[in-house]
Amino acid sequence: MAKIVVDVMLKPEILDPQGQAVGAALPRLGFTFATSVRQGKRFEIEIDGEATQAMLAEVSRAAETLLANPVIENFVVRVEK
Amino acid sequence: MAKIVVDVMLKPEILDPQGQAVGAALPRLGFTFATSVRQGKRFEIEIDGEATQAMLAEVSRAAETLLANPVIENFVVRVEK
Repeated sequence: MAKIVVDVMLKPEILDPQGQAVGAALPRLGFTFATSVRQGKRFEIEIDGEATQAMLAEVSRAAETLLANPVIENFVVRVEK
Repeated sequence: MAKIVVDVMLKPEILDPQGQAVGAALPRLGFTFATSVRQGKRFEIEIDGEATQAMLAEVSRAAETLLANPVIENFVVRVEK
């Protein structure tokens, strides 16, 4: 059994109101470290067997189809140890 | 400038309807690889200067306060290269 992680983030040129809201709330709470905050999604997918290249390609197709909107979002597929 | 990533996931014992919906939709689209899907949040935080241990501790406090609900969610803070 392997765990595959898909990170989905809005493309840099796309406005991210969720991230902006978090970025605006941090200083109100006394946290002044952030110059920029972006919020995205993280999917943890468990699969049977090994995370082969073919399996990762299949997960990428699923990410393109269902997990991310490729018009406005980028995604990264990786195996988590 | 450094980029700090905070991954927030529901605790394993907490029901995750979003992840379940994705897990149920995948086979309908012909993707049969997943035995379990969990969905969470990913925050990308840009900071000025180096990601020191003190800075990471501060980000952890912010994650506890604002980014995650520690009653039902776990989070991981890490520096992204």
